[in-house]
Amino acid sequence: MTSPVCLAVDCMGGDHGLPVTLAACLDFLKRDSLASLLLVGRESDIRSAPAFAALQASSRAQVIHAPEVVEMGDPPAVALRTKRQSSMRLAFEQVGLGHAHGAVSAGNTGALMAISRNVLKTIEGIDRPAIATFIPNRSGSSTLMLDLGANVDCTAEHLAQFGLMGSALSMAMGVLQPRVALLNVGEEVIKGNELVKQAAEQLRQMPLHFIGNVEGNDVFKGAADVVVCDGFVGNVALKTSEGVAQMLGAFLKEEFRRGLFSRLAALIASPVLRAFVKRVDHRRYNGAVLLGLRGVVVKSHGSADAYGFRHALERAAEAARHRLVQRISESLAERSELLRPSEP
Amino acid sequence: MTSPVCLAVDCMGGDHGLPVTLAACLDFLKRDSLASLLLVGRESDIRSAPAFAALQASSRAQVIHAPEVVEMGDPPAVALRTKRQSSMRLAFEQVGLGHAHGAVSAGNTGALMAISRNVLKTIEGIDRPAIATFIPNRSGSSTLMLDLGANVDCTAEHLAQFGLMGSALSMAMGVLQPRVALLNVGEEVIKGNELVKQAAEQLRQMPLHFIGNVEGNDVFKGAADVVVCDGFVGNVALKTSEGVAQMLGAFLKEEFRRGLFSRLAALIASPVLRAFVKRVDHRRYNGAVLLGLRGVVVKSHGSADAYGFRHALERAAEAARHRLVQRISESLAERSELLRPSEP
Repeated sequence: MTSPVCLAVDCMGGDHGLPVTLAACLDFLKRDSLASLLLVGRESDIRSAPAFAALQASSRAQVIHAPEVVEMGDPPAVALRTKRQSSMRLAFEQVGLGHAHGAVSAGNTGALMAISRNVLKTIEGIDRPAIATFIPNRSGSSTLMLDLGANVDCTAEHLAQFGLMGSALSMAMGVLQPRVALLNVGEEVIKGNELVKQAAEQLRQMPLHFIGNVEGNDVFKGAADVVVCDGFVGNVALKTSEGVAQMLGAFLKEEFRRGLFSRLAALIASPVLRAFVKRVDHRRYNGAVLLGLRGVVVKSHGSADAYGFRHALERAAEAARHRLVQRISESLAERSELLRPSEP
Repeated sequence: MTSPVCLAVDCMGGDHGLPVTLAACLDFLKRDSLASLLLVGRESDIRSAPAFAALQASSRAQVIHAPEVVEMGDPPAVALRTKRQSSMRLAFEQVGLGHAHGAVSAGNTGALMAISRNVLKTIEGIDRPAIATFIPNRSGSSTLMLDLGANVDCTAEHLAQFGLMGSALSMAMGVLQPRVALLNVGEEVIKGNELVKQAAEQLRQMPLHFIGNVEGNDVFKGAADVVVCDGFVGNVALKTSEGVAQMLGAFLKEEFRRGLFSRLAALIASPVLRAFVKRVDHRRYNGAVLLGLRGVVVKSHGSADAYGFRHALERAAEAARHRLVQRISESLAERSELLRPSEP
């Protein structure tokens, strides 16, 4: 929080819309005295929301009227072509126009990808934007994983670009020399598919600290700072982890509700259980970064509550303050330099 | 346990070898009065092991001498070509010769795949064997997932064959009409990569109950009985789940050890915590089935203890008793029948 930052917020997106986004905005401004917000959405709705008075009183929030809303079920092409005045689109436009340093939306992923790309364009040298998210690991820090579903059919060059962008984001978040790894299968069986083998070759040529392969379980051990994979594999891996965590949580709850003694034990153990739940609270990891665009865009989970959405705002502020886009451009320039044949 | 069954056991494989495998064999025979075992390994070592006397007393265990052992670090090609008298190979040969109904080994996966395929050959109509394993789900039953790493580069036809074999195994394990699904990414973004789209087309033509796509988190909800994916994705998904479960377990332990009060709470909650641990005990799911071979082959985790290895033996006995190989052949025949053009 060293420099002023302004974020454009799509206040209408997500499963809950204004009650969640405005509460999060208020909390965010309270904690970050150098931040200001552009609240994008239906002006009358925003002005009549309970949290608005306090936001207005802060004098660091300004409303930008957007008459349309991208619904969670809107197909990307429809949202892109027909809703030219959506809160999502206008939020990205604020970034494109230079009025905001970054944008945050909890709207539907497909539309968000299509519209952000259409409005902001990709950085020169990047073929496809990727979705990156931080996941907790045992070492107490977090691991950045990408791509998580933006690109389900990738080439080795795409994976190499993901590595470069992930490394830049990790550095922007404070890691000095991020360890970049490729997600792969166990050595015992076969050392990866064709795509991964070629990607490893390319990553070795990149201006980044490539440490080779990691396996699925290594991700949660903190074996790498950045884990690169194609969007299909990343999406399956992330959702599988969510599924396991939900199942284990449900089982634990069930066991603590089984009979009188268990309920008593739960009561006594409740401070410990609460500490555990807090530690693995996925809301703190809310806020996936769209990498490769000419602007900072953070996607909140659609079902996020105000606590989760605030974390997405914080993520965007941090990425913007640490010049994420410039860092990626610089890495790309460095790469071109490396690839250029030396003078005779 | 309705009919007699004989299994060939590679007693030398795994991280622990004889102490684990023989203890498991003894326990297995005690619980299954119609089972008998061929103990394959170094005869003198087997005979001098503590558990052997009891095994011999059962009169349902017979030793088959194998002078060589496939080590955990042996490359598949080396194990296949140079160790023609290994306990692993001789165990599979017992199945090929019709002396055993199935074989179990905790040896290294690569060697196990190569040698079992070399000795037993694939079923006609199956291009590649797959590795299938059962994973727990919230509904209290289990989900069969394949492939888990045998094939990292798959075609749509391979995935369709996995569906057919998985369905046959699920039926052999007692599911009347297994729901077969394809592992895919969230609908919102893009509906899967090219491979998965083509595989869905082929699975629809198969003589099985194909229910469409499931996402990573659905696997643990019990949304399908059989989940099909390529070996790269399956391996990453499985190892990622293991990683999450280990991390959550470690966090829970740490919280219950943080200070005096937490330790007291842990003491009081210990019966509940033990019930939880028992419920998610991965050892009960030990025993991956190699599908597509002309014989039942089950792979135990290399690090399995006697409790885990016993479950792998039970899995093999069940698959053999329910005629797994014949079921797969019958499904393939049914498929050919469906594909044949009708008479004019």
